[in-house]
Amino acid sequence: MTTARWVLDRCTDLLTFSARPDALERAYLTREHAAANTAVAAWMRDAGLDTETDAAGNLWGRRAPGGAPERPGGAPERPGGGAGDRAPALVLGSHLDTVPDAGAYDGMLGVTLAIAVAERLRDTALPFALEVAGFSDEEGARFGKALLGSCAASGQWDPAWWEQRDADGIRLDEAFRAFGLDPARVGDAARRPEELVGYLEAHIEQGPRLEAVDQPLGYVTTVAGARRFVLTVTGEARHAGGTPYDRRRDALVAASMIVVEIERLGRESAGCLATVGEIAVEPGAVNVIPGRAELTLDLRATTDAERDDLWERIEGTARSIATVRGVRFDATETHRAPSTTCAPWLTEAVVEGITATAPPVDPGRAASDGVPGLWSPAGHDAMAMAAVTDVAMLFVRCHDGISHHPAEDVREDDVALALDALEAAVLAVARR
Amino acid sequence: MTTARWVLDRCTDLLTFSARPDALERAYLTREHAAANTAVAAWMRDAGLDTETDAAGNLWGRRAPGGAPERPGGAPERPGGGAGDRAPALVLGSHLDTVPDAGAYDGMLGVTLAIAVAERLRDTALPFALEVAGFSDEEGARFGKALLGSCAASGQWDPAWWEQRDADGIRLDEAFRAFGLDPARVGDAARRPEELVGYLEAHIEQGPRLEAVDQPLGYVTTVAGARRFVLTVTGEARHAGGTPYDRRRDALVAASMIVVEIERLGRESAGCLATVGEIAVEPGAVNVIPGRAELTLDLRATTDAERDDLWERIEGTARSIATVRGVRFDATETHRAPSTTCAPWLTEAVVEGITATAPPVDPGRAASDGVPGLWSPAGHDAMAMAAVTDVAMLFVRCHDGISHHPAEDVREDDVALALDALEAAVLAVARR
Ligand SMILES: NC(=O)NCCC(=O)O
Ligand SMILES: NC(=O)NCCC(=O)O
Repeated sequence: MTTARWVLDRCTDLLTFSARPDALERAYLTREHAAANTAVAAWMRDAGLDTETDAAGNLWGRRAPGGAPERPGGAPERPGGGAGDRAPALVLGSHLDTVPDAGAYDGMLGVTLAIAVAERLRDTALPFALEVAGFSDEEGARFGKALLGSCAASGQWDPAWWEQRDADGIRLDEAFRAFGLDPARVGDAARRPEELVGYLEAHIEQGPRLEAVDQPLGYVTTVAGARRFVLTVTGEARHAGGTPYDRRRDALVAASMIVVEIERLGRESAGCLATVGEIAVEPGAVNVIPGRAELTLDLRATTDAERDDLWERIEGTARSIATVRGVRFDATETHRAPSTTCAPWLTEAVVEGITATAPPVDPGRAASDGVPGLWSPAGHDAMAMAAVTDVAMLFVRCHDGISHHPAEDVREDDVALALDALEAAVLAVARR
Repeated sequence: MTTARWVLDRCTDLLTFSARPDALERAYLTREHAAANTAVAAWMRDAGLDTETDAAGNLWGRRAPGGAPERPGGAPERPGGGAGDRAPALVLGSHLDTVPDAGAYDGMLGVTLAIAVAERLRDTALPFALEVAGFSDEEGARFGKALLGSCAASGQWDPAWWEQRDADGIRLDEAFRAFGLDPARVGDAARRPEELVGYLEAHIEQGPRLEAVDQPLGYVTTVAGARRFVLTVTGEARHAGGTPYDRRRDALVAASMIVVEIERLGRESAGCLATVGEIAVEPGAVNVIPGRAELTLDLRATTDAERDDLWERIEGTARSIATVRGVRFDATETHRAPSTTCAPWLTEAVVEGITATAPPVDPGRAASDGVPGLWSPAGHDAMAMAAVTDVAMLFVRCHDGISHHPAEDVREDDVALALDALEAAVLAVARR
């Protein structure tokens, strides 16, 4: 269990824990979430880690500084929150949830790489405990709000989130109970800064830049701050045949104008991305003018100020369209995460790890000069964990920059390098 | 059961046969369709009609020329298709299905008025049999294709329709079986021209014109020909964060441009209406660029040529947008009905009926001069029935032209006039 093949095979195994037989879809607090936790926990234990699911459904594995816990006998290290006077831990990890019709690697590669590294270092004494986190909700595909798992683990849970509902109208607190979790105890999942040495996350790049510079690995400089909104356009449902144009307040035509403007404003703002990923209309019948349209908006930018500025322009434009079209426009924010800068000292360990796998071709040039540092427009659990500890990230090249799609792909030799680099990075942290 | 109050109360009763507790939604071949048929059949029998559900789920009531069937004893008149040497019938009727979140009168008012007229004429000998039809699918809200019930009754069933699916993927032939109908026998529902004297349909106007001219009732000149399509835009699902604009093939942005253009082209074509009533995207997640969008298009115009010409312009524009945006555009026609001109002789009987209720205020002017003749942009079962018999329609003023909306409303005094007029129209036909 210390090879790239093992890592890739486990990502393939995880495809089976899905809501759909023909596609990967694993949302927070579902039956398949529970099943994936069970399978991954077994792999963690095989790698010498004690395991525990925390109060927000995150899966944790842990070993003491001295190496794998001795079983049977001896007090096993209790991973996850609520620790007493235990050694601080370096946490490796990523997430186990997916978007609908997902690829096999987004999140899962980081968790399986971390387990393989733990196995490789099983008998190596380290000056810190080693933990592996399998976060339960990073995508936010079910409740709109992303990073729920790592927000719980970093003590940032906002009780307002309990009210958020999934597409079937199930409230987050109801979903907690159905999963066997107690909403009142979500605070137990929070890790404290003194328990942690840092958080190191490996992830597929989900973009085309490593491929463009022909490099297998890179490190992350900053993770973009994201905001998400639900936008609602309210017009009036009427008969598609009986209602002349001058009597229509068609919610879909207005929403469509807004979608087109969102793309135009996003394109003209360098470093910003604005995407409408979902739309639904009511009543939704072929011969009825839509009376209501609901859309989601996903916003990211290199800086939080640019992102907030783009939102103001989008909101202003949407309100103008609504006025001209005689409909109402409303917006509710469902997610906001500030942009996150990775910790220089921990990032240096990542660069050291990468460098150890790829010696310089150019004599006289430091190996680390060739390592690409990337801005991440995609959000990551590292953003949330940055609230309680230093974070750094390792990116793995992915095929054609494709992600959130079943065609998501990585090369086995790149994964082998990532495994070596992550192991070397942990040892580099140990030397500090 | 011969008053406007009775008619309105039965429309209120029918609100309870719904898929949703809070709104009216009664689609073809559902449990609530069966329940409504059961209730309406009882009202028909109370009015002295024999009842039968035909091979397509339409409900029929019938009495012989001499008056209500004598029960018990005697051979009751068998309504519906497959009749032997029976007297030809004048059919009064409309439909019992609804759009989602429907009003109480679209369709149902025509059926309940027809039953009330049958009760009023119960003991009146007529030179033809009298039938009442409660058509099972006029809206086409479930399978996209409209007028399924009256197409079966007029012998126009196209076996290609069996393949059409509802939003849950259930095929029309499967839905037939689940309702207890045999798809192979749908031909049994077909009425033959020699069985029919004509088809007379009362319906709410579903538009604002009678209200504008301050008239309670009108007759229909022509029913607009309709076409319906499912439009599909295929792009590529990708990560909303990781995918720069120059790598996107966003199906929703292209679809939104098409929606906006459809409205623009519809507005600039006098006498035409083009409406997108439904839209869905895949995979449909907040942080995933939509890879596929599916929309429905509803087209109507004063003439079929204008409607077809508008479709060609829409299709051309959609293809240009698809090319520019690097996505694919496909269109499937799900419904086509030619425009229908009401039969002059039967329409004269309707005008006579209306005139009988509203004597001329202007001496020296024929009462019929004041009766508004209206073009109907909304489709009606009369369109389908026109394939086997002469048709005519009576329109009832509705509040603010609202239809396909719970705020649909009619005035009790207008319904009283409609009841008198429809009865008088039947007697006028009897005199011919
Ligand atoms: N890395 C990743 O796919 N994150 C999901 C949250 C986001 O859309 O940024
Ligand atoms: N009258 C009516 O609402 N018909 C439904 C079919 C159509 O949309 O025209």
